[in-house]
Amino acid sequence: MAIEIVKPNDIEKRSFAIITEELAQRGLTVPDREAPVTKRVIHTSADFEYAETMTYSENAIDIMQDLIRKGADIVTDTNMAKSGISGKTLEKFGGHVHCFMADPDVAKEAKERGITRATVCMEKAARISKEENKPIIFAIGNAPTALIRLREMYDDGSFRPAFIVGVPVGFVNVEAAKELIIETDIPYIINRGRKGGSNIAAAICNAVMYDLPSARDF
Amino acid sequence: MAIEIVKPNDIEKRSFAIITEELAQRGLTVPDREAPVTKRVIHTSADFEYAETMTYSENAIDIMQDLIRKGADIVTDTNMAKSGISGKTLEKFGGHVHCFMADPDVAKEAKERGITRATVCMEKAARISKEENKPIIFAIGNAPTALIRLREMYDDGSFRPAFIVGVPVGFVNVEAAKELIIETDIPYIINRGRKGGSNIAAAICNAVMYDLPSARDF
Repeated sequence: MAIEIVKPNDIEKRSFAIITEELAQRGLTVPDREAPVTKRVIHTSADFEYAETMTYSENAIDIMQDLIRKGADIVTDTNMAKSGISGKTLEKFGGHVHCFMADPDVAKEAKERGITRATVCMEKAARISKEENKPIIFAIGNAPTALIRLREMYDDGSFRPAFIVGVPVGFVNVEAAKELIIETDIPYIINRGRKGGSNIAAAICNAVMYDLPSARDF
Repeated sequence: MAIEIVKPNDIEKRSFAIITEELAQRGLTVPDREAPVTKRVIHTSADFEYAETMTYSENAIDIMQDLIRKGADIVTDTNMAKSGISGKTLEKFGGHVHCFMADPDVAKEAKERGITRATVCMEKAARISKEENKPIIFAIGNAPTALIRLREMYDDGSFRPAFIVGVPVGFVNVEAAKELIIETDIPYIINRGRKGGSNIAAAICNAVMYDLPSARDF
């Protein structure tokens, strides 16, 4: 297998061209508006299955971009996703990326209550969102319990997330937790099934931001 | 789809039980010594294809564990992987996790020389390894150019990596770069093909560390 000579700045372009070509070869179609996001997810995973499972609520990308333009924060459930999301790009619009998972108060409360730290993090995010009157985009790449808690707060009327990127990965309650969000009228980008991850959550957030006309000039 | 009630501490155990069961159902076998690593990769990706593509050099896990016990550092090519690798566990053995990708000197040099930052990072890691006489485990989850540079330094005799976790993901030179490492006598854990990622690199490093008898008591 020979190494192909590609300039650093051209690697991404070449990768997306290959993805576009192979989607066509496989007979997979992705709506134009969603293509930059779904393709970036495939770019991050080399897994074409995402073309069949990525699910968008109506006008999801427009809604998420509008929130970003208005300075929404992103709250994620892993520090890996936080590292992967382009904080620099979000800050151009006045937003910040947060992850509360490693906060000592979160660990303490989770232990005391016998629940996951991700559950406590969602409650903390809801509290901050209400105190600061700031919309939050949730980017969940790991913990289905985060999605379950967001749905519970939605159900009891205590908090409504502005947007959910719901791509936890795994084998226990992951598929069911995603469906719990799809059933609501909260706008979302979700990957149905077991697959997802922190890298996928970050790829989705970045793709939506990069697709904003004013984001790419950095 | 109903939500299954599982205590926070039991979620991982339950997930690994499901993975073990489904590997058997799919007729996939993984050697015992490698199973904790391959299963953690599947746990991180929900992708059983890894059971067929994960490739280990002879005694790879023993060699990597020995390096960790002796205080080897881990150098990775993304800050996402750095976030995902348990630095706390590595520090118990005297090692540290590094990523030089965001270092201003790296960005400057890469631009001047028209090469990727990952290439420059590998050279920086080699320099530090030699100066400090410290073995380095490379955990490459993104850039095939990192693997290509490691192979070049191996070929010209200027540097020999102690171990390579080689799981870049993508479409341009990813498969070929992995084969370039497999051809050498450097010990490795590599996922053949296009798949991999920062999350996979972190999962492999963590699985190898967690499998050390003294690592899990934290």
